[in-house]
Amino acid sequence: MNSIKAVSYPVHFQDKGYKELSNLISTNNYSTIFILVDENTFDLCYPKFIPNLETDKRIEVIEIDSGEINKNLETCIGVWNAITELGGDRKSLVITLGGGVITDLGGFVASCFKRGIDFVNIPTTLLSMVDASVGGKTGVDLGVLKNQIGLFANPEMVIVDTEYLTTVSEREIKSGTAEIIKYGITYDTKLFNEIKNNKGLNVNDLIFRSIEIKNEVVLQDPKEQNLRKILNFGHTLGHAIESFYLESEDKENLTHGEAIAIGMVCESFMSSKLLGFPSEKVREVKDVILSIYNRTILLKEDFAAIMDLLKHDKKNVNGQVNFVLLNDYEDHKIDCKVPEELIIESMEFYNK
Amino acid sequence: MNSIKAVSYPVHFQDKGYKELSNLISTNNYSTIFILVDENTFDLCYPKFIPNLETDKRIEVIEIDSGEINKNLETCIGVWNAITELGGDRKSLVITLGGGVITDLGGFVASCFKRGIDFVNIPTTLLSMVDASVGGKTGVDLGVLKNQIGLFANPEMVIVDTEYLTTVSEREIKSGTAEIIKYGITYDTKLFNEIKNNKGLNVNDLIFRSIEIKNEVVLQDPKEQNLRKILNFGHTLGHAIESFYLESEDKENLTHGEAIAIGMVCESFMSSKLLGFPSEKVREVKDVILSIYNRTILLKEDFAAIMDLLKHDKKNVNGQVNFVLLNDYEDHKIDCKVPEELIIESMEFYNK
Repeated sequence: MNSIKAVSYPVHFQDKGYKELSNLISTNNYSTIFILVDENTFDLCYPKFIPNLETDKRIEVIEIDSGEINKNLETCIGVWNAITELGGDRKSLVITLGGGVITDLGGFVASCFKRGIDFVNIPTTLLSMVDASVGGKTGVDLGVLKNQIGLFANPEMVIVDTEYLTTVSEREIKSGTAEIIKYGITYDTKLFNEIKNNKGLNVNDLIFRSIEIKNEVVLQDPKEQNLRKILNFGHTLGHAIESFYLESEDKENLTHGEAIAIGMVCESFMSSKLLGFPSEKVREVKDVILSIYNRTILLKEDFAAIMDLLKHDKKNVNGQVNFVLLNDYEDHKIDCKVPEELIIESMEFYNK
Repeated sequence: MNSIKAVSYPVHFQDKGYKELSNLISTNNYSTIFILVDENTFDLCYPKFIPNLETDKRIEVIEIDSGEINKNLETCIGVWNAITELGGDRKSLVITLGGGVITDLGGFVASCFKRGIDFVNIPTTLLSMVDASVGGKTGVDLGVLKNQIGLFANPEMVIVDTEYLTTVSEREIKSGTAEIIKYGITYDTKLFNEIKNNKGLNVNDLIFRSIEIKNEVVLQDPKEQNLRKILNFGHTLGHAIESFYLESEDKENLTHGEAIAIGMVCESFMSSKLLGFPSEKVREVKDVILSIYNRTILLKEDFAAIMDLLKHDKKNVNGQVNFVLLNDYEDHKIDCKVPEELIIESMEFYNK
């Protein structure tokens, strides 16, 4: 597969990625290579990765605990201390090997260590391949608020090797699928129809097309003034729902994709009420999503807490929640204010 | 005084600064203005500042505890939580009102909040006026290691109002003077001679000239490849000494300037031994510094701990400490390796 040239770094696929990584390391003469993993990627991905790493530089592995709950500043402090104790300097390289928690947190850690050292992302989940590999967003959560602390920072390169997908669960794969559905709905109806009809899908092609779309969007609107906001479709309410389940001790967490899938159904519904997005398409979105994900009944008694979390969405200005809604497939409108009753109605619509 | 155009933002002096700030606020239509202070600047500087702030926007004051010991990630987390609870969003503005701890930490906090919001620095100490107002460095300490975590990020503007200097102690003024001496030694012998002869010095002129020099240096070498490294003169050993006193519970802390002054004497001595920097100039540097600062006797038993802290200097690569030394006034050499014995000898020279 050809490499994709992102805003200011390349995304390489499969074996080509490792060749380019070796070139990068020898060209830049790094002092030490830090590989950031969690206990799962250390067990399952690191053994696949390490034979591909051709270098005589010192390699140090730093392991953090897996899970969104650890994507926070305390974990960052632990990694910064570890890098310091292991003699990290400005010529060190950080390689992140894992899902979105590892790539987002690792990019942030590298970008702030001694005011910034190089990093390379190797996403190992479908979600991080199609979502986090392009766009230069790094960050961690603050309490339950997702990605509140972070910055835009570009890796030296991203390596997408679908071999790592054999290490993740069916549920993780579905989590990533939600982002692919989002690209389809907001930018490429053909892609959405392929998923809907689910005929002979090739995961490599889906990933390549998703990254291609995200890259086109980010290149056209790097600062998220307008077009890039389509990437937030389903995410405004979806993030609030995800945060709510994360902070509820008596409820099982949702994956990012499961929450975003719910968000897309609800936001399609809002779109139909506010912008005339055709109601048969709302139906279609809901059907596709319920054919992939089990329905999570959202309890009436939880609505208030979810609404409260919405108020911290990063797109908000002056306490006003801003949604990205759809006039139609591939046709969005930004900065939509949605009455509270309609948000609640949309969750009831999803429940039905 | 004319404004100075830094790399990508202006430094305004005195009243002009407040006019420009009002323009900035009305042009950008910020949602909320957060003013970051410590207990001292809240008492002494805030009452001077607030009548100059013309705006009908919501203003929230966030106070942190003063002192280098609080320039850490725990304090950042507290400020991020405060901004979040007070409804901060992407259109919020942070104004830092204080010394280097406030401006460095506040810039870092703003640059990472929701991937970056605008900030304006109003330094209130001589040190932060002449050192931190230009250059775009933000950051906090990691344990005793100074500025280990941070990034390059530019404020929207810097306002230098020397009226605030009436609020700080003689010792604080001397702390800032060390940086002015550094500009003199490394870049402008005329400035150094003025300080040496100490005749009719106008503090406003010294500040203006210092900022002008720092700005020239940063403009010529924004990425610290060569020339900008002169700004580290005295700082390599100086930082280690500063950190050592900071972590020693039985010793009084040194100010940044006091530590850097010691560092400049020692590094001048190293320069004479390694690069032929004239020994009468070593004498001159030492005399000027001892005429301003009391001598702090560095104990032999502390040398090992100071050497150990040197190993974490940000300029190090592959565990090798890199000094910036002088061939002569205004003539530096970067990446100098100094034998351990000579570093110790230089501290003994300072003690004598």
